[in-house]
Amino acid sequence: MPRFTQSVRLFLFCLMGFVVAACAASPAVPVAGPLPAWNDGPARQAIVEFVTDVTTPGSEHYVPPAERIAVFDNDGTLWAEKPTYFQLLFIVDRVRALAPQHPEWADEQPFKALLEGDMATVAAGGEHALMELAMATHAGMDSEEFAAAVAAWIDTARHPVSGRRYTEMVYQPMLELLDYLRDNGFKTFIVSGGGIAFMRPWTEAVYGIPPDQVVGSSVELRFVTKGDDVAIERLPELHFIDDKAGKPVGIQRYIGRRPILAAGNSDGDYEMLRWTTAGDGRRLGLIVHHTDAEREWAYDRDSHEGRLDRALDEAGERGWTVIDMANDWSRIWP
Amino acid sequence: MPRFTQSVRLFLFCLMGFVVAACAASPAVPVAGPLPAWNDGPARQAIVEFVTDVTTPGSEHYVPPAERIAVFDNDGTLWAEKPTYFQLLFIVDRVRALAPQHPEWADEQPFKALLEGDMATVAAGGEHALMELAMATHAGMDSEEFAAAVAAWIDTARHPVSGRRYTEMVYQPMLELLDYLRDNGFKTFIVSGGGIAFMRPWTEAVYGIPPDQVVGSSVELRFVTKGDDVAIERLPELHFIDDKAGKPVGIQRYIGRRPILAAGNSDGDYEMLRWTTAGDGRRLGLIVHHTDAEREWAYDRDSHEGRLDRALDEAGERGWTVIDMANDWSRIWP
Repeated sequence: MPRFTQSVRLFLFCLMGFVVAACAASPAVPVAGPLPAWNDGPARQAIVEFVTDVTTPGSEHYVPPAERIAVFDNDGTLWAEKPTYFQLLFIVDRVRALAPQHPEWADEQPFKALLEGDMATVAAGGEHALMELAMATHAGMDSEEFAAAVAAWIDTARHPVSGRRYTEMVYQPMLELLDYLRDNGFKTFIVSGGGIAFMRPWTEAVYGIPPDQVVGSSVELRFVTKGDDVAIERLPELHFIDDKAGKPVGIQRYIGRRPILAAGNSDGDYEMLRWTTAGDGRRLGLIVHHTDAEREWAYDRDSHEGRLDRALDEAGERGWTVIDMANDWSRIWP
Repeated sequence: MPRFTQSVRLFLFCLMGFVVAACAASPAVPVAGPLPAWNDGPARQAIVEFVTDVTTPGSEHYVPPAERIAVFDNDGTLWAEKPTYFQLLFIVDRVRALAPQHPEWADEQPFKALLEGDMATVAAGGEHALMELAMATHAGMDSEEFAAAVAAWIDTARHPVSGRRYTEMVYQPMLELLDYLRDNGFKTFIVSGGGIAFMRPWTEAVYGIPPDQVVGSSVELRFVTKGDDVAIERLPELHFIDDKAGKPVGIQRYIGRRPILAAGNSDGDYEMLRWTTAGDGRRLGLIVHHTDAEREWAYDRDSHEGRLDRALDEAGERGWTVIDMANDWSRIWP
């Protein structure tokens, strides 16, 4: 067999036609070693160099395992967020499921509009309507009942565009990154604007991240005893919004240690990236840039979900690595 | 060598006089295997049986490792709490350390009384005075400055009675229990009424419990950017009190899974014990009963610190194991 350079071999491989579609969508450079769904580009290199640097004993930038904290946004960073945040789709399904117990919703906005499929009227209600829907579906039951409702939904509901389960709408390269970091002694956390109780029932099975390593937004809770029964009730009142400047606060409150790696995809992650990368020693800030309209979605500055503007502008000066989904990922879905 | 029964051998051993003091204080039955500082009594047996039950594959009560959550109160459960909570002693030392930056304290109560050593006046100020002292010493700086202040204090301060470091006032049997549980796949957490930021700087070194597995009371936090500087400021306002009915709430908020083992020593742990042991399957509730005036302190129903009354009354009916410090622990200090 003649000895070709790697690029000639790749070219011939594409010519063979078996993988024409994949080659067209993404000029894949097959990689050896970790992170196989990543092309051998600057993003993968930055990650591997960082991990090598902080884990090599004697390295100037060595970090002991206990301090290897990595935080990940969820929506748009670990799983998709189009056509809208999946938790909103859960809310819609949940209002429909709970409607028989709430006959009054047939005449009350925003429930009436939602039940009639009139999403324009729901949207016109703005943040106030959304909060009413969120509280009606996320509170008024105990914590174990809510977890069971989420688990039942995530097991059966299907994404409106792909028809796949939501837990299949996660990014294979990010699953590999989570594994790669854990294999190198990192402790991985989710730090998301999404509901903490909405994520915990499935993050361990899907991401390998246990409930106590999930940080998110939350409602007020109250412990109640009724005779021999005990429960933790979910109250219809916001307790904490884990977004924007709330993210470093959530990190401090729940993790208590400054991360050395943060990954996000929107301006909601800006403060978390600032807090993480301003620390001493080697730090890595990662931004997933949605550039792939063929295989996923392409959006940034003008998107309602995952608006990425200021964080993208400042990425260069702050040394954050921007992951170009179209070029850096040879595969997107598991 | 003649073959003696274990008790005859123990008797002879005591007669030898080398360990007269230890034998007098506690009729030690040397144990083989885990938990060597525990006597072979009902408490140790309950623990070993429980751990064996939930970790033996095929056992009716088997619990997968991910669900082996164990929670521990701190004051009076993992370390001592006499003559008063150690965090109060930190507050006293900290007011003295900060006084030069606060000349106004020379005329302001409760600071004036504290600086003059007039603890009766401080105490007469009640909860309000205490909160003022707590906020003046626990807020008004950023989270890293506060952690450094705690670390410096814990490294140098000495217990007023024993003269030992506070981190040496921890219970050897409980250190062994933490290790034993982790060796058996448990994840161990602190759930304390004490300040979360007061515990985190040293729990990993002392208990093997990392900062993200510490749940405690907390102040409000705020993320601030000043040019290229970023910080998390500690505000003089309570955010969460992790005591009594707050403990199950703290568990749900931070851990997100119901524990299968809870250990406490006071009525402040009652709700945590209820929440833990009311769950399905095998559960273990442990109460450290301070019965040893010789080697530690003896107190329960009438104590200001660690008042143990209702939880002691209900221990029998609820199946909680009461650890009798004088009889169950052959050694108390490391």
